[in-house]
Amino acid sequence: MWKGTNIMPGGRMNFIANLCALIAAPRPLSAAERAAALTSFEDTLAVTYAGWGEASTAAARRVFAGATAPLLDGAKALSPEHAALIHGIAGHALDYDDVHLTSVTHPSVVLVPALMALTASRPDLTPRLIDAYAVGLGTNIALGQALGFGHYDRGWHATSTIGPLAGAAALAHLLGFDDSTTRSALALAAAQAGGVQQNFGTQAKHVQAGQAAAAALRAAQLAEAGVDGSQDIFGPRGFFDLYGGITPGTLPDHVAPDTLSVSRKLFPCCYLTHRMIAAALEARIALPDGVPNDARIMVQVPYGGMRPLQVTDPQTGAQAKFCAAYCVATALAQGRVGLADFKDDAVRRRDLRRIMAQVETIEDPLAGDMPIGIDHGSVRLRITAAGRTLAEAEAIHYPGAPDAPATPEAFEAKLTDCLTIWQHETGQTLTPASFRRDLRARFAPDMMTA
Amino acid sequence: MWKGTNIMPGGRMNFIANLCALIAAPRPLSAAERAAALTSFEDTLAVTYAGWGEASTAAARRVFAGATAPLLDGAKALSPEHAALIHGIAGHALDYDDVHLTSVTHPSVVLVPALMALTASRPDLTPRLIDAYAVGLGTNIALGQALGFGHYDRGWHATSTIGPLAGAAALAHLLGFDDSTTRSALALAAAQAGGVQQNFGTQAKHVQAGQAAAAALRAAQLAEAGVDGSQDIFGPRGFFDLYGGITPGTLPDHVAPDTLSVSRKLFPCCYLTHRMIAAALEARIALPDGVPNDARIMVQVPYGGMRPLQVTDPQTGAQAKFCAAYCVATALAQGRVGLADFKDDAVRRRDLRRIMAQVETIEDPLAGDMPIGIDHGSVRLRITAAGRTLAEAEAIHYPGAPDAPATPEAFEAKLTDCLTIWQHETGQTLTPASFRRDLRARFAPDMMTA
Repeated sequence: MWKGTNIMPGGRMNFIANLCALIAAPRPLSAAERAAALTSFEDTLAVTYAGWGEASTAAARRVFAGATAPLLDGAKALSPEHAALIHGIAGHALDYDDVHLTSVTHPSVVLVPALMALTASRPDLTPRLIDAYAVGLGTNIALGQALGFGHYDRGWHATSTIGPLAGAAALAHLLGFDDSTTRSALALAAAQAGGVQQNFGTQAKHVQAGQAAAAALRAAQLAEAGVDGSQDIFGPRGFFDLYGGITPGTLPDHVAPDTLSVSRKLFPCCYLTHRMIAAALEARIALPDGVPNDARIMVQVPYGGMRPLQVTDPQTGAQAKFCAAYCVATALAQGRVGLADFKDDAVRRRDLRRIMAQVETIEDPLAGDMPIGIDHGSVRLRITAAGRTLAEAEAIHYPGAPDAPATPEAFEAKLTDCLTIWQHETGQTLTPASFRRDLRARFAPDMMTA
Repeated sequence: MWKGTNIMPGGRMNFIANLCALIAAPRPLSAAERAAALTSFEDTLAVTYAGWGEASTAAARRVFAGATAPLLDGAKALSPEHAALIHGIAGHALDYDDVHLTSVTHPSVVLVPALMALTASRPDLTPRLIDAYAVGLGTNIALGQALGFGHYDRGWHATSTIGPLAGAAALAHLLGFDDSTTRSALALAAAQAGGVQQNFGTQAKHVQAGQAAAAALRAAQLAEAGVDGSQDIFGPRGFFDLYGGITPGTLPDHVAPDTLSVSRKLFPCCYLTHRMIAAALEARIALPDGVPNDARIMVQVPYGGMRPLQVTDPQTGAQAKFCAAYCVATALAQGRVGLADFKDDAVRRRDLRRIMAQVETIEDPLAGDMPIGIDHGSVRLRITAAGRTLAEAEAIHYPGAPDAPATPEAFEAKLTDCLTIWQHETGQTLTPASFRRDLRARFAPDMMTA
């Protein structure tokens, strides 16, 4: 028998009980926590607007066009599930949406579309939205801890395996489910957990994020209608055993609402490239004349840090988002990495290809009892030529992470960038100010003056 | 790193190439094969009609009612995906739908609703339906062999993990996809593979079957619209590695269309109880005065034969379907096991509880290089009292399996039973003859005289 995670049955029973307690009655959030949640809504919707014209989003909008559930652009989808799917695809299409580090997930791109899909037809639930988001993120964090990094290490797309359960938890709070209905919703969500890193670099990755949101909705709607499921989906041969890795996770004693633990991306590419980019931007300062042709660019990352970055010769913008050499070369060449760098016609630029060929990546091996995950250690970058070190930099924090938050200016610039793309795609004007006003009116009327 | 299945990369690359070749151009089916496929449609739709009023189906019909996609009863669902979901739930609600033994799956309850959902809006595709079904079943069989019994043994609901890919293969044939689109459809389907045995005995099991059908449809529709996915979802850290068991499967050299390998159920309960029931029915002949109060009823099954049968004290009809003692006791007491025995008010009958307490099950241990799976060995039943053997029976074949096919009378009786329930639920009259006529008109106009 496959043993997924090294978790005692007793602890497991406590886990679902603790989770249900969180979902039923989370502690009240502080004003700062509520404001942070609203920023997550802003960040998620901004990248959703920006991803509206991407090929994957456009295909899903076309296939699932209908007359039932409202979409951001005023059009409608076949069903609320399809609205969640489309918004999730759009939100993840640029890989620019927020991240939770220890679970290696994109939590908000699942939670926000799932919550939106339900409140669209039931605006009376809107006052519970922020708390529901915090319950969902808290669940996401707890499940990530329980599965451990071994889950991601095996090849699962944690966003879409953990996401359906985190989303179902959020919706269970939104709908005020009783204990048994909550357990069924979690079981119905776990029944839809899936998504694989083999699809990274393709549009199927976007779909995986969107279907996690849709799965949460399906689970909650069926549970609400009385469909039952296992009353402890974390029990033997359940979610943890099937989705766990060789390396065991640790069951948290306590699950809590959370809005402060997400990292906001400042570059539209895989988050594992961001410390590389930060180090490259720093190293670049020492190279006013650019990277010499004979230089070696060595990037050393902790164990697991190259896991999703399997692309070495990107042919499309989507592939370039998962190419370490491309991201490092772009940062070194330009001093910035932006949306324009991931257009298909940008990825074959000669000057970048030259520098890419000079980049070498080294991943630390798995060592004894060293903690693993993407949220520890540092990325070190060294540029040498003729045996001499030209530049060196180390990035410990991920740009935009809770311990290195985006400056207000950087976040504002991201919003503006995203809304400009939307305007270009749809012809609909949206300034950061009008965007924020709309968003508060829709999701947090009590925070209109915030 | 988790090693899922003991499969060489070279073999894997051949696997997807072989699969795509099957999907693109399966060999022509014989008349007998086409007739068998049509019988699978009959069997699947009969149990779908019978499951129409079950609580899980009724809930899904309510939640996903809309104006877009036609349902069997003339109502409509929100979308074709939801029609597939509802038909799949109804088809599996009674656990009376067909089975494929080596893969431990219910193949037709995924394939038929997925195919129906697409041809409902595109009747021009109907002439390809039977071939598409055979491609889907062939894919299901190949994937089951590749994953091996270890997949099911770990706790996966193979119907809903393998089903999305088998369904996507069938739809890819139906739609005439090119090689790259087929690969994307398989990748998008694998991204939705999920479903766990932890949900057995609850309505979530029915939902898992239904969502496999819906997932196939979503995968095919998105691929058709140009959404790409991994071009080899069976490659490293892909489907086989993530869903494989400790016990490796074996990659088939050859994948072929199939319509002859399904087993048709003659009792509406978990197929792993069926050899037990067969043995009990045989043993009963030696006990004209019934089972004595002091008798021991010993049931010995091969390794894995008790895997999904974790229920010992069923409180609902759904749970009783997964209770070995209940099924054996019912067969011994009554000489038949039918739909009425799985109504909630039937499961607490005093006379059955007395016999249930006398049943002991013994599962053979996992031994060396013995082949494992549910399609080998035999079930032995022995009834003893005061040290004397009163009756003994051994069941090697599963009733209704290809090597012990249902008699025409038994199959006809099943159809009549199923259609009677439908008539009771909906007031719509449907005889086996009119049912068959409708079905041929809808799915196989060229076989109207068959």
